Amino acid sequence: MKFRKILLLDYTGKELEKTYWEKIARLADKKVFLTSSSKNLGKELVEADGVLLKLGAKFGQDLMDQASKLRYIGMLGTGVGGVDLKYATKKKITVCNIAGYATEGVAEFTFGAIIDFLREIERAKQQARQGDYSEATFAGTEIKGKKFGVIGLGSIGARTAELALGFGAKVFYWSRNRKKNYERKRIKYRTIANLLKESDIITLNLALNPKTNGFLGRTRLSLIKKGALLVNPSPMELIGLKALVSRLKKKAISFILDHSDEMTKEQLRLLKPYKNCLIYPPIAYTTEEATALKKDIFVDNLENFLKGKPSNKVN
Amino acid sequence: MKFRKILLLDYTGKELEKTYWEKIARLADKKVFLTSSSKNLGKELVEADGVLLKLGAKFGQDLMDQASKLRYIGMLGTGVGGVDLKYATKKKITVCNIAGYATEGVAEFTFGAIIDFLREIERAKQQARQGDYSEATFAGTEIKGKKFGVIGLGSIGARTAELALGFGAKVFYWSRNRKKNYERKRIKYRTIANLLKESDIITLNLALNPKTNGFLGRTRLSLIKKGALLVNPSPMELIGLKALVSRLKKKAISFILDHSDEMTKEQLRLLKPYKNCLIYPPIAYTTEEATALKKDIFVDNLENFLKGKPSNKVN
Repeated sequence: MKFRKILLLDYTGKELEKTYWEKIARLADKKVFLTSSSKNLGKELVEADGVLLKLGAKFGQDLMDQASKLRYIGMLGTGVGGVDLKYATKKKITVCNIAGYATEGVAEFTFGAIIDFLREIERAKQQARQGDYSEATFAGTEIKGKKFGVIGLGSIGARTAELALGFGAKVFYWSRNRKKNYERKRIKYRTIANLLKESDIITLNLALNPKTNGFLGRTRLSLIKKGALLVNPSPMELIGLKALVSRLKKKAISFILDHSDEMTKEQLRLLKPYKNCLIYPPIAYTTEEATALKKDIFVDNLENFLKGKPSNKVN
Repeated sequence: MKFRKILLLDYTGKELEKTYWEKIARLADKKVFLTSSSKNLGKELVEADGVLLKLGAKFGQDLMDQASKLRYIGMLGTGVGGVDLKYATKKKITVCNIAGYATEGVAEFTFGAIIDFLREIERAKQQARQGDYSEATFAGTEIKGKKFGVIGLGSIGARTAELALGFGAKVFYWSRNRKKNYERKRIKYRTIANLLKESDIITLNLALNPKTNGFLGRTRLSLIKKGALLVNPSPMELIGLKALVSRLKKKAISFILDHSDEMTKEQLRLLKPYKNCLIYPPIAYTTEEATALKKDIFVDNLENFLKGKPSNKVN
């Protein structure tokens, strides 16, 4: 089985290396690069049985209605917020995204950022560079023995919890659903309130959706104990920004984030004055391994769909 | 049982908090603070049955001969190079040091420094601080899947190997003696030559002694593969400095060290020009937990000796 025509919407050809394009070519009789503003869009859509989208693309009812032969939409990324999933289901269009490719990258980054914070890795290197090799002003603390709370036990949260356990932390989680398989591994369930109250280190690993938007608002943020470290390698919409700033201002907690590229200048201006707020570019998921895995999954999704066993189907 | 007189050589009293001094006071009829240059040293030594030394102190045959009642020497640290252990044994003097207090601290630091290197944690924070939130120039790699070689499977090496395993690395070790209990945990033995040839990341966790001095000389350093990272949280005397510089100069390997305080200015001047040489002050062992544990062990050693069950005896 092959696709008859795959439409590549707003792709330039630089998104994937040659070997990936060759693989895709073998899975389709034709592949057509097109921008979403092209006059030909309507005509091409009529014939396309597959559409590949880039992160952030919108694909709603109108386009689906035009694409009467469409049976597959593939997203080069995780977020599919711009795709009308319900309508796609109604039209019997399979929508697949890429999930889980950055699990290790994000979890490892999380520990790199935590240890950088706990041990002042950056200041230590800078001091040595200036010719001062004294440890006198350094008194770090260890992850071992700390109470480590993970909010959201999806793939990244679960991996983060496992690594924390490996470091010898006392690990708690809160998740919408209880995960007995992790509880058997000494990752203990807490109510969200108790997790926030008890933990020395907290990581926020929730997907963003209407239910999780603003998940850590003023009330919940106020539960976090003084001196705790909150790490958010997830979208900043999960957190009430003004309430966060108010706790940072009082030096009550420290905070690490990496979704800075998705924030407005005004939002960043609120956070930047605080030394206890460590801002990274979004590098948590940018490992070579994650990038390669992402492309592999993108092509695998196409192959699996053709074999009748869709992978990463989101509708 | 108590000591009759404990001599505190070159202590100021600031080395330990009050609670520790109180504990020591309960273990001895008398405790005397004295500098090693004091005129009274001879007189005090004659009566002392215990002597407490600070790291780096020298205590040789002459002093032991003067201290005819001496039965215990305690070191506030690990290294006992300045104490004549053989002569102490001959004189039936028990010498105890402090070992293992920094296992977690050093192992955690090692991973902090590795992830800082692999993900460019420092550069990322600096870039964000300057208002640039793009990840475009960051392509880190993961510990997962890497070949991770640990040289020396003492307490710190073993803990490092366990953590590497937790991160999903393929872990090898070389140690003077095979350690079957770790081999059962998927930490595989390699000859030193094969470990050096195969590993992407290498940590050097040997104690310094006449046999290990210069352990990584020109021949062994030349075996390390291009692009590998060598981490040394141990004394720099383990490594042939000129051979190391020659590999750094060719950008063949990267190197992390933290025993910079023990190096001469000339030695540091050899390493400083290289960006692939990351120099830290000796912060690997300076965690609050390690510092507290160190003092606890110091006092425990005294108590255990009095109970007839010496702990951390090194002779």
